[in-house]
Amino acid sequence: MKFQTDLATLKKGDRVDHFLMIRRSELKQTKANKPFVSLELGDKSVSLPANLWDNFNSILSELTVGAVVQVEGVIEEYQNSPQLKIENIKLPKPSENISAEFFLPRSKRNFEEMKHEFYESISETENGYLKKLLNSLFDDKSFEKFSKAPAGKQWHHAYIHGLLEHTLEIIKICKLMATFHEEINKDLLVAGAMLHDYGKMEELVFDSAFDYSDKGKLLGHIVLASLKVNEAIIEIPEFPEELKNQLLHLILSHQGKLENASPVVPRTLEAIALYHADELSAQTNAYKSAIASDVNAQSDWTKYISLISTQLYKKEILNQ
Amino acid sequence: MKFQTDLATLKKGDRVDHFLMIRRSELKQTKANKPFVSLELGDKSVSLPANLWDNFNSILSELTVGAVVQVEGVIEEYQNSPQLKIENIKLPKPSENISAEFFLPRSKRNFEEMKHEFYESISETENGYLKKLLNSLFDDKSFEKFSKAPAGKQWHHAYIHGLLEHTLEIIKICKLMATFHEEINKDLLVAGAMLHDYGKMEELVFDSAFDYSDKGKLLGHIVLASLKVNEAIIEIPEFPEELKNQLLHLILSHQGKLENASPVVPRTLEAIALYHADELSAQTNAYKSAIASDVNAQSDWTKYISLISTQLYKKEILNQ
Amino acid sequence: MKFQTDLATLKKGDRVDHFLMIRRSELKQTKANKPFVSLELGDKSVSLPANLWDNFNSILSELTVGAVVQVEGVIEEYQNSPQLKIENIKLPKPSENISAEFFLPRSKRNFEEMKHEFYESISETENGYLKKLLNSLFDDKSFEKFSKAPAGKQWHHAYIHGLLEHTLEIIKICKLMATFHEEINKDLLVAGAMLHDYGKMEELVFDSAFDYSDKGKLLGHIVLASLKVNEAIIEIPEFPEELKNQLLHLILSHQGKLENASPVVPRTLEAIALYHADELSAQTNAYKSAIASDVNAQSDWTKYISLISTQLYKKEILNQ
Amino acid sequence: MKFQTDLATLKKGDRVDHFLMIRRSELKQTKANKPFVSLELGDKSVSLPANLWDNFNSILSELTVGAVVQVEGVIEEYQNSPQLKIENIKLPKPSENISAEFFLPRSKRNFEEMKHEFYESISETENGYLKKLLNSLFDDKSFEKFSKAPAGKQWHHAYIHGLLEHTLEIIKICKLMATFHEEINKDLLVAGAMLHDYGKMEELVFDSAFDYSDKGKLLGHIVLASLKVNEAIIEIPEFPEELKNQLLHLILSHQGKLENASPVVPRTLEAIALYHADELSAQTNAYKSAIASDVNAQSDWTKYISLISTQLYKKEILNQ
Amino acid sequence: MKFQTDLATLKKGDRVDHFLMIRRSELKQTKANKPFVSLELGDKSVSLPANLWDNFNSILSELTVGAVVQVEGVIEEYQNSPQLKIENIKLPKPSENISAEFFLPRSKRNFEEMKHEFYESISETENGYLKKLLNSLFDDKSFEKFSKAPAGKQWHHAYIHGLLEHTLEIIKICKLMATFHEEINKDLLVAGAMLHDYGKMEELVFDSAFDYSDKGKLLGHIVLASLKVNEAIIEIPEFPEELKNQLLHLILSHQGKLENASPVVPRTLEAIALYHADELSAQTNAYKSAIASDVNAQSDWTKYISLISTQLYKKEILNQ
Amino acid sequence: MKFQTDLATLKKGDRVDHFLMIRRSELKQTKANKPFVSLELGDKSVSLPANLWDNFNSILSELTVGAVVQVEGVIEEYQNSPQLKIENIKLPKPSENISAEFFLPRSKRNFEEMKHEFYESISETENGYLKKLLNSLFDDKSFEKFSKAPAGKQWHHAYIHGLLEHTLEIIKICKLMATFHEEINKDLLVAGAMLHDYGKMEELVFDSAFDYSDKGKLLGHIVLASLKVNEAIIEIPEFPEELKNQLLHLILSHQGKLENASPVVPRTLEAIALYHADELSAQTNAYKSAIASDVNAQSDWTKYISLISTQLYKKEILNQ
Repeated sequence: MKFQTDLATLKKGDRVDHFLMIRRSELKQTKANKPFVSLELGDKSVSLPANLWDNFNSILSELTVGAVVQVEGVIEEYQNSPQLKIENIKLPKPSENISAEFFLPRSKRNFEEMKHEFYESISETENGYLKKLLNSLFDDKSFEKFSKAPAGKQWHHAYIHGLLEHTLEIIKICKLMATFHEEINKDLLVAGAMLHDYGKMEELVFDSAFDYSDKGKLLGHIVLASLKVNEAIIEIPEFPEELKNQLLHLILSHQGKLENASPVVPRTLEAIALYHADELSAQTNAYKSAIASDVNAQSDWTKYISLISTQLYKKEILNQ
Repeated sequence: MKFQTDLATLKKGDRVDHFLMIRRSELKQTKANKPFVSLELGDKSVSLPANLWDNFNSILSELTVGAVVQVEGVIEEYQNSPQLKIENIKLPKPSENISAEFFLPRSKRNFEEMKHEFYESISETENGYLKKLLNSLFDDKSFEKFSKAPAGKQWHHAYIHGLLEHTLEIIKICKLMATFHEEINKDLLVAGAMLHDYGKMEELVFDSAFDYSDKGKLLGHIVLASLKVNEAIIEIPEFPEELKNQLLHLILSHQGKLENASPVVPRTLEAIALYHADELSAQTNAYKSAIASDVNAQSDWTKYISLISTQLYKKEILNQ
Repeated sequence: MKFQTDLATLKKGDRVDHFLMIRRSELKQTKANKPFVSLELGDKSVSLPANLWDNFNSILSELTVGAVVQVEGVIEEYQNSPQLKIENIKLPKPSENISAEFFLPRSKRNFEEMKHEFYESISETENGYLKKLLNSLFDDKSFEKFSKAPAGKQWHHAYIHGLLEHTLEIIKICKLMATFHEEINKDLLVAGAMLHDYGKMEELVFDSAFDYSDKGKLLGHIVLASLKVNEAIIEIPEFPEELKNQLLHLILSHQGKLENASPVVPRTLEAIALYHADELSAQTNAYKSAIASDVNAQSDWTKYISLISTQLYKKEILNQ
Repeated sequence: MKFQTDLATLKKGDRVDHFLMIRRSELKQTKANKPFVSLELGDKSVSLPANLWDNFNSILSELTVGAVVQVEGVIEEYQNSPQLKIENIKLPKPSENISAEFFLPRSKRNFEEMKHEFYESISETENGYLKKLLNSLFDDKSFEKFSKAPAGKQWHHAYIHGLLEHTLEIIKICKLMATFHEEINKDLLVAGAMLHDYGKMEELVFDSAFDYSDKGKLLGHIVLASLKVNEAIIEIPEFPEELKNQLLHLILSHQGKLENASPVVPRTLEAIALYHADELSAQTNAYKSAIASDVNAQSDWTKYISLISTQLYKKEILNQ
Repeated sequence: MKFQTDLATLKKGDRVDHFLMIRRSELKQTKANKPFVSLELGDKSVSLPANLWDNFNSILSELTVGAVVQVEGVIEEYQNSPQLKIENIKLPKPSENISAEFFLPRSKRNFEEMKHEFYESISETENGYLKKLLNSLFDDKSFEKFSKAPAGKQWHHAYIHGLLEHTLEIIKICKLMATFHEEINKDLLVAGAMLHDYGKMEELVFDSAFDYSDKGKLLGHIVLASLKVNEAIIEIPEFPEELKNQLLHLILSHQGKLENASPVVPRTLEAIALYHADELSAQTNAYKSAIASDVNAQSDWTKYISLISTQLYKKEILNQ
Repeated sequence: MKFQTDLATLKKGDRVDHFLMIRRSELKQTKANKPFVSLELGDKSVSLPANLWDNFNSILSELTVGAVVQVEGVIEEYQNSPQLKIENIKLPKPSENISAEFFLPRSKRNFEEMKHEFYESISETENGYLKKLLNSLFDDKSFEKFSKAPAGKQWHHAYIHGLLEHTLEIIKICKLMATFHEEINKDLLVAGAMLHDYGKMEELVFDSAFDYSDKGKLLGHIVLASLKVNEAIIEIPEFPEELKNQLLHLILSHQGKLENASPVVPRTLEAIALYHADELSAQTNAYKSAIASDVNAQSDWTKYISLISTQLYKKEILNQ
């Protein structure tokens, strides 16, 4: 696929000749009963609304969420927000080999650097059983899927490689906590950090738009991770029962409270540290994203965010 | 072991010459600094308080919770409640072959009848995969443990065979619900009923006094059941993924709410029916037990029960 | 009224010549300031949206919710959902004798069978005072109203005869519970089951569209039932005070928790059984209805249901 | 009964020759197995602990809560708190005609003044139906019981005439609110104030020690009042249905929230005013009592009060 | 500014030639892509919707919320609600000297009377330190701002002088409470009443449309008041530490519960009285306003009010 | 004061000749009416129970909590726990110059190292206003008090220098978070970390036993800190209003939720990071302390801890 400028950098009046992913697609009708297609189109940088007023019958059935289309048009403004005026729309030729992945938001961190950090943490593990377990659960194929996954559908680290970025933050926080408290079993805590969201790669689908899988909604990522870890432990001879129980406890309790969908509350020193390290990484990232993506440009406050029942303040302090 | 009258049937002044299980044992001291042992001793019918004032040094270390002792003495009354005055206490001879199980409270239902009902339900299952799975999870050895377990430490069906009795009640309620709604998948719902508390046999210890196991406190019976069911399904060729997910969903969601330690809420028709069938069986049994075991003999009201934040009313209506 | 095919069985392109009830009626305006009427029209099987673009001034004042109109037109599709294109609309002639009741959703169970079951339960009552009370509260006139009522406005058994169907389910569940526990006073429990929602026939209006009455919003069906039962008991000589209090307690506590609008929590064995039997019947019916009526045809999941804060899973398991 | 000094005014070393009511009575045993009776004895001013070490067998069965005994002894101090050393105890002769009521705590306000204020409010009522209803519900016999009742077992206005004192406070607050808002129906609001706790005279027993009645625990004072008001309204010809519903709504909603045991929340202007007027009167009285009766004499803070999950501050500000 | 009739008194067909404040202003587009301005215009009596279809480009940038415009047109009806048809719109000439304040809703009470009542309460204060403090915090300049402020953005006393009106109600309620309980320190309680919402004048902006200030959202009116009172106390020589702490406690705890944003709960007699007096004044006013401003004219019930999760009943009882 | 071995290192039978602080003191009575003093005595390492049976009248009035006494005796065991048998007890001579501080638990970290780390963080601050503010609030006198304070009465870092140790942990966590997110204003966040619990030195008293001050209970440490920071900012010329508001916001919101006594919720990126960094440091330290101080030596589980509604698991995993 040839190079194309990020949509987010274009301004009112700029021309568009882009491959874009369909993020939303609805057949609507004007009050005069004339049908039209209301779309949201985007690349990895941003998504814009666009309406298709005519001549869409031949491709209507292809305009599904997650599909990629080739669009010519121009950037306009509507109610202070940019929108895309479509002049021509068509499907890419198969020969153009368009990958959906190209259009998904992704981590700003360098992937190879993150991968290196992650495997280094495995190699630092002194407990032989845990090391074997981590190497098994993060073999090449599993790591490929794990490392591609977002950490959530929307709230925090909701981008390709987001789960890996999030996991690395927690690992670093946990290692810092271990310097404060020698009573912490560092190997166990770091292994728990690595595996706590392992079930997210099954709970979410992230080939095109991010969403929950059926399995994810029926079982949840906490139990999905526990089943996988249990299966892997069965394959490791003489894996200590005590170690297994405490590791599974870390995964099960890492959301800290029953009402957060953890079936048990943290009952070990490592479990309480993991829970709060996860919260610290997740919520800080989420607030940063909410502030960065806020569309309310005129105001120092974001729009009301129902998940946290408040607005956030965007004004930066100049260091003086 | 020779026959002995149930403790619950004895009255003030009656002689005791019984094997009894120690339910509580504490070394205390009178204000005058004289040590004594405060005990609770019982058979399967009831437990009574008793103090050991003298000559206990030689057997003190054996007076642990769950141990069985041979006691001679007499029933007295103290503050309107019966207590046991110990005149002689000794350890049973190994040759007497005392089984702790004899002293545990047990279901009033006939065990063979319950077992028959249970296996009949398995044999009625039409879905071949579920039938295989049930036969595997309830093979002779597993059923022996499952059928012996109580359904709880204290609150409901807290007696030997209680889990089986509770499971049978739910099965019947679920079958009745299936007659109301043809949309219910009866095989799936009944299998869910049979397996919903399967993890209790690992979560609880019930060889002597009932308590939670370490594993039970760290993982919880819901996840313990899920791990076991998952392991058994792996052994059944071509077990359908969809069936597995819906069955695991029944187990995971059967406590109905996140704050009740279910990691997912009920999201299928069978799941909502199972949740409320479980509640109906459990709470009705629990209230019956709380009323039956209340010691507040003078009053029409039980003592305040903190688990349900209320007293219960004991007065029976005469049918007229 | 002549026979007419159920609306739910018609497909795109089918002609309509039907009497239909108005379920929603709003005067709107196009952006070009042209007024039109936005309607929802239905029979007992389903409701469809329809717009009236012209010539409605003469009948506008009659287009009120609950009124019945005669419509000619055709079934169309709009955004994947069926809608009704109106070609002609008029009011029925008085001589046509249209009953609003014909257009309301109704129980699928046979009414005479349900009525028979219900009175059989009364006749089985052994307690003479309760039997007298039930016969008084369910005399012909009261039973006619009671048996016609839905059990709710929307959530469960929300159709004509729904309250009767719901009550019969609970009666059966309660009788099953009485087979488990001889401590249950079966007459009292069954009488409580029969009367627990007696106030719903005053709390709801169900002559045309279902809604709450003023009295229902100010007093609630629990208190409305208590007032009626109290009035009836006053008329029965020597009705035992104890029996009255326990029966009223069943009605008052049947929603189980203060936050569910029960002014007292269940404090008797019968009360706890009734509460959970009610939940079991109500929630299972509600989930079935929510799944059956979901319009999200493309997906295995219903739309998000705010009352239960979740989506439901619709995929059926094939028995294999 | 001859005059006797209030117990609360006696100091360490003072002689006692008093009729006193038994507030608590328990048969206990010393560690040396010697039985004794642990009592709490009081007049209307205060209650003190006292132990009966010997010679109590002949009167033991009479030492029940609420009974009155004649005691000779002396005031002592034990752990910074006064207690009563009993030298002689006996039952009063029937000829002494001891009334239990004499020993109960009572309002400090003048009863005749309160009664006058109360009937004046009835006579000010302009709405004829409400006036009839109030005169019926507060006829001589009912007023005698109503005016004697406490407003609670322990928390607020928990003394003889407390319900009347509390009701008068609310009436005054409501009349003040009516001066702020002409939209308030003053007659309706004041009638609601008078009747809101009418059920307390059945919910509580207050002949000797204050406690809940069986009926009170099964039905609650809110429903008890509603039943009585409904019965009285039936006797008044043409009492308007609308007025009845709004008046019952005031009673039912006066605890403001479902979780406070109101089966409906306030939905009228009068209902919201009554709810908060009740809270203001009740909580202020409760905090005053909690501070006044605190035994923690050394500290500026009361002991922790679990009902409000806090301690209260007792230090008074001197006006300067 | 010349006299103009209140908008609220105009009916369908009446001519308009008014200065009006813009309460909402959005640039929209018809489905045919034609832009128009959707406005809400009002005076102090009411606000009406209005659309501007043409010729607005020259003044578009001035049509901001809070601005005042001069409008000619006519009152029309749309969906049973009045709206304003604009025939001509222009900006006022600077010479016309239009004050935004004129267009804000304001208290119906006479301002001078309220001011007099307020200062009378200060002059009645006997405690010299409190009197000095009140005179300092309510000097002419501060009182001008304080007395102009509304007590809230929307819910209660949300109009110019609303904070003063609300404060006076609480003062009267508190003085009534002091007649019930001599233990109340009246000077302290009344000073607390006067200052409890002192921070509202910084938390809110009320020059044109009412809203929260940045500072208000970051610190809240409770802390803003505490900072100001603390600053003023520092300037008063020998202000007693104890008095300062109890006064600040009244301000901090006046919302009664942590979840209401009070950082401490009421722990003194005055604090509990102030909390409930505030609730009584605020909620009664809020319900009155919600009923008065309800637009649902056909119904006896207001629309659903999400803040209190219910509808309110509007039907008045005729005194008979 | 001469050297004395830590009480925690003594075993059954060891002689004691120690200065010890009184942690609890109650005058009790044996059942035989003989008075005795029940004490808890400790040094900085541990506290032990001890009874004083005779000859205490002359010093009884001096045996107050927080006082230091000189004790001779021997270590005994009672119910598996050590206790102290007192043979002789007397008050220290004034000349012995006993400092209460010596007996308080204290941080295990080196104080000078902590002090150095703390001031280094101040000196790293680039924002001139914040640096001035920190230097003012942590001048020598204030730092002496601040650095001595515990971070809580019981739950976390409840020892001398605990507040400093806790603050340093948070500073490090915050600095790590700033490496993840360049959007974080590091100076502001670190200043917030330093000041978030500044009010604890006024909220707590820690000269002898740790407790809350009157001021602490009436105002809370969050507001106490805000008042102090506000006073200091007034003294710094041209301190930016925006910076002040955001800094105060960090202090006010650092407990994250209204129900945790924060009067505002976190609304900036720095605020959310500070809240979770505080939780992470506090809870991990608290769980470590709860495990370390658990007296339940026989079990792998601590006793039930009501603050967190659970037991904790103490078993350590051996690294293999």
